[in-house]
Amino acid sequence: MSQSENSYPTSARNKVKRLHERGFYDRATVHGILDSSMLCHVSYVIDGQPYCTPTFFWREGTKLYWHGSSASRMLRNQAGGERVCLTVAHLDSLVLARCGFNHSADYRAVMAFGTAYLVTDPEEKERAVIAMVDRFFPDRTAGLRASHAQEIKATSFIAMEIEEASAKIRAKGVGDDEEDYALPIYAERIPVRTVLGAPEPCPRLREGVSRPATLNGYSEGRLLEDALRHAYFVRYPNG
Amino acid sequence: MSQSENSYPTSARNKVKRLHERGFYDRATVHGILDSSMLCHVSYVIDGQPYCTPTFFWREGTKLYWHGSSASRMLRNQAGGERVCLTVAHLDSLVLARCGFNHSADYRAVMAFGTAYLVTDPEEKERAVIAMVDRFFPDRTAGLRASHAQEIKATSFIAMEIEEASAKIRAKGVGDDEEDYALPIYAERIPVRTVLGAPEPCPRLREGVSRPATLNGYSEGRLLEDALRHAYFVRYPNG
Repeated sequence: MSQSENSYPTSARNKVKRLHERGFYDRATVHGILDSSMLCHVSYVIDGQPYCTPTFFWREGTKLYWHGSSASRMLRNQAGGERVCLTVAHLDSLVLARCGFNHSADYRAVMAFGTAYLVTDPEEKERAVIAMVDRFFPDRTAGLRASHAQEIKATSFIAMEIEEASAKIRAKGVGDDEEDYALPIYAERIPVRTVLGAPEPCPRLREGVSRPATLNGYSEGRLLEDALRHAYFVRYPNG
Repeated sequence: MSQSENSYPTSARNKVKRLHERGFYDRATVHGILDSSMLCHVSYVIDGQPYCTPTFFWREGTKLYWHGSSASRMLRNQAGGERVCLTVAHLDSLVLARCGFNHSADYRAVMAFGTAYLVTDPEEKERAVIAMVDRFFPDRTAGLRASHAQEIKATSFIAMEIEEASAKIRAKGVGDDEEDYALPIYAERIPVRTVLGAPEPCPRLREGVSRPATLNGYSEGRLLEDALRHAYFVRYPNG
């Protein structure tokens, strides 16, 4: 494949300007950061006012889907095909350096740009209803109570083709000015991890109902992002 | 104090419309969610295009501060006093229900609206240089190598008075339709926690330099948000 097939194009919109050595545009890096999260922040504009809404999302190829209610501001605004920016950020560590200026954090972030549309095609919407569960919890939909027609009607999905995207990564821990390492000042990196707790079965479970093996990936102490990436590849083995 | 002094005003901009029973506007709730995070997402608009930038921030009373470089897009745009939306979201659990529609998550989120400005007043900037470290790591600046003039010049801060804000909280675990509880389907809540790892001292520490007691709040296994809230109250005991 050519470079252009493996990478997202760059423009003034997505080119990483500040600390540009931290910028990446290849699909593998961008997709890996996206697939490690279920939470994103979507920015959109109404009458010149920006909004930043946290929501759940998933990727399918070079498309992103997210969930909303047909009553929400965002959807009313985006149904016509609105420009949005969808961002995912992982905080990996706090970095305490020998001067204030070099205090920092390790992180991985993606900004994805595109034109959002309301999913109205019945076939695409049916796929989204399943994927919004099964992308996170493989094969779960097959064992659930079937969706009522009014539930599907009340559920709205927004989608966008990723037109441009950039990843920004810092992963170096303490980075002080060379002359400052000689100073008698304490410096450290504090790792930050988002982990799963012990699953809490619903107190109203029917007797004899036990946890299906398909949820084994969500085990106590595991990194959330590992569970999410694993679930992604179960559902989308081709990436 | 009157209700209006304890709460942020509501308007079409910040009123929680979808699932409005999850909306809160009181300062204690809004500030508690903000102070539990060092990462926020800031939305702003350039030529009709929305951008969503993850960055570090802190609160001082009803003002929010965040950090950027004078080279960044956001600052160039916001220096003139731009409308922004600053959002913080905590993911608290994944919720697996008995049908797709009731799959959800527990979360706490805040959207804060205001007009951002570049901090140019020398006194306010000097306070921000200290607070961007000491708000997270109490009293740390006093023990650091003093900032060089060119470092302060190269550091830019954006601030905004919170004009309106809303919090949205879901904290109920599995919430199925009453008739669905009788079904033989497994349902659970999986807690999600963001925790601190073991601090990793800089490999180039001078001999004899040890971890100061002021960092005791950042201990292995502690919730990041607990460490952040504790540090906040050390620096801002009046809230």
